[in-house]
Amino acid sequence: MSPDLAWLNEEPRPLHEETVKAARARQSELTKPPGALGELEALAISLAGWQGRVQPSLERVHISVFAADHGVAEEGISAFPAAVTAEMIRNFVRGGAAISVLARELDATLEVVNLGTIGEAPIAGPHDLRLGAGTRNFVKEPAMTDTQLAGALEAGRQSVERASAHGAQLYIGGDMGIGNTTAAAALACALLSAKPDALAGPGTGLDARGVAHKASVIGRALEKHSGYLRTPSEALQRLGGFEIAALTGAYIRCAQLGVPALIDGFISGAAALAASPMLPGARAWWLFAHRSQEPGHAAILSALEARPLLDLGMRLGEGSGAAAAVPLLRLACALHADMATFAEAGVSGKL
Amino acid sequence: MSPDLAWLNEEPRPLHEETVKAARARQSELTKPPGALGELEALAISLAGWQGRVQPSLERVHISVFAADHGVAEEGISAFPAAVTAEMIRNFVRGGAAISVLARELDATLEVVNLGTIGEAPIAGPHDLRLGAGTRNFVKEPAMTDTQLAGALEAGRQSVERASAHGAQLYIGGDMGIGNTTAAAALACALLSAKPDALAGPGTGLDARGVAHKASVIGRALEKHSGYLRTPSEALQRLGGFEIAALTGAYIRCAQLGVPALIDGFISGAAALAASPMLPGARAWWLFAHRSQEPGHAAILSALEARPLLDLGMRLGEGSGAAAAVPLLRLACALHADMATFAEAGVSGKL
Repeated sequence: MSPDLAWLNEEPRPLHEETVKAARARQSELTKPPGALGELEALAISLAGWQGRVQPSLERVHISVFAADHGVAEEGISAFPAAVTAEMIRNFVRGGAAISVLARELDATLEVVNLGTIGEAPIAGPHDLRLGAGTRNFVKEPAMTDTQLAGALEAGRQSVERASAHGAQLYIGGDMGIGNTTAAAALACALLSAKPDALAGPGTGLDARGVAHKASVIGRALEKHSGYLRTPSEALQRLGGFEIAALTGAYIRCAQLGVPALIDGFISGAAALAASPMLPGARAWWLFAHRSQEPGHAAILSALEARPLLDLGMRLGEGSGAAAAVPLLRLACALHADMATFAEAGVSGKL
Repeated sequence: MSPDLAWLNEEPRPLHEETVKAARARQSELTKPPGALGELEALAISLAGWQGRVQPSLERVHISVFAADHGVAEEGISAFPAAVTAEMIRNFVRGGAAISVLARELDATLEVVNLGTIGEAPIAGPHDLRLGAGTRNFVKEPAMTDTQLAGALEAGRQSVERASAHGAQLYIGGDMGIGNTTAAAALACALLSAKPDALAGPGTGLDARGVAHKASVIGRALEKHSGYLRTPSEALQRLGGFEIAALTGAYIRCAQLGVPALIDGFISGAAALAASPMLPGARAWWLFAHRSQEPGHAAILSALEARPLLDLGMRLGEGSGAAAAVPLLRLACALHADMATFAEAGVSGKL
């Protein structure tokens, strides 16, 4: 491992176990049958353990969307042209994309990080961290170099450090990159020893023939890199994408800095799947937002033992599914903080 | 049918079909792959059809919680004493119950309607519509008289008329009543020709033995009233509860006045199951909020061909599951209204 990556070995922050116990005790005193608020109770207790506050709150939500192009797009594995990646960066910044609207509605901070698109540079400034004109076509060669992998992981790390410095109580990572369901499926195949036709899906809208072609492209890539996919880092470098590796770095840094990560869908899930073995214990800082319509997501969620909050047939990326789940976390905090206890309300307990 | 109930036969309001088409067309122009926002797209389109506005909004949400006691509670079918119904009415009004907290967070109107509790009267005024000291024990006699049934349906009707008069864009009905999962399960058994052990569940927290006892109580009631459960009205009168019948009346009135109803969980579902055959076409004005942990809810949802928005293991009632789903509807409206189109953003379309 290159010296630049030493930070990946820092320990995850421990949870506030005593606060978890106290929050659980408070839940049992609120005027409702025990457990009747289901996951909303579990969310409040988890947030208490992350924040070290028996009555957690969730004002400050940070969203970083990482965008990059994929060399494998030249194999014709997407329903949309690669130009869309750069066009969508512009749309994010101008406020017209789904995640832009959701960030405004949630009063969340939104930043867009350009990790490398084909063609012109649509944004400049601190979040222009281009590592190349997209990755290479991983059917023919590794998707990225050692240096590019380190740079992408570092971009994720830095975004979490900015979020943490501004007091973010929740971190959402989003993705944009034409071709990235192909990269995520290839990565997941390598990490799960799964067959391409089990994890390849329609992405932005392929038909059955397109999905079969995508699976065959992934199969060729897995064969090409066979023997060089022994670690998550190797798999990320050879089959991943810049935005996927950035999310991996971000989810690791979230655990190290103690900022809970709300993980979006298929692309984010593949990044978390790579991050999980890289930092044992990191998983305790992650919450899963939604079940993607993309069929390969089920295998990723199962491997991470994750049961997401929402199942709304979404498959957009950008962090949109995670953003849609934020109000549930906020309602969970409000219920936990503001409901009366049996004693306060003079309500009789269980027989 | 008594003359008081003639209003039940008024036609449901037609949907705005042209607006549905226009909203669907708008969705197809927004900067995302078609269908990528899943149910959030469908919600925006449904709201457009209900409101007759291509870009719907959802500022004004009305919540009515109907509370009543159940004579069948004397059979020992609840984990909590019947006194809790009246105690919880006080808790709703003072703002300490889950639905009180949720209503504040959502900036929704909350009213509590007392349809009849055992013992003292905790609230007075326009929403004190007590029809009796709870229903009768339906193991021994019909739960309510003709007049009480008409009064309960009317209470639901009036709550929707108040909501509509104040411009509510969404109606949520909630329930409170110790023993009401027994009544709802008995009603659903009658309406679905199902076995009690298939629909009886733990409610507020019965153990396996308690659930078996509850099923046997429901079985005795079904036998007692056999031959008198031919219509939903008969089943409501003999096995229902005041709050359940009020919800039935409310869901029917919602369709007649064109106020969409967001239906909560098991109790609300049983009320909708009774309402559906009473007013053909009413179903088009209903949206299902969440899948209750109460096991009998699955059969009700299946019969209504409903796929709820949330599945969070909730089982509280009060309208709490419906309230938890409101932010998804609001985000759906915001995305539909505020996302850029492909043309506006200069983003390339599908290959």
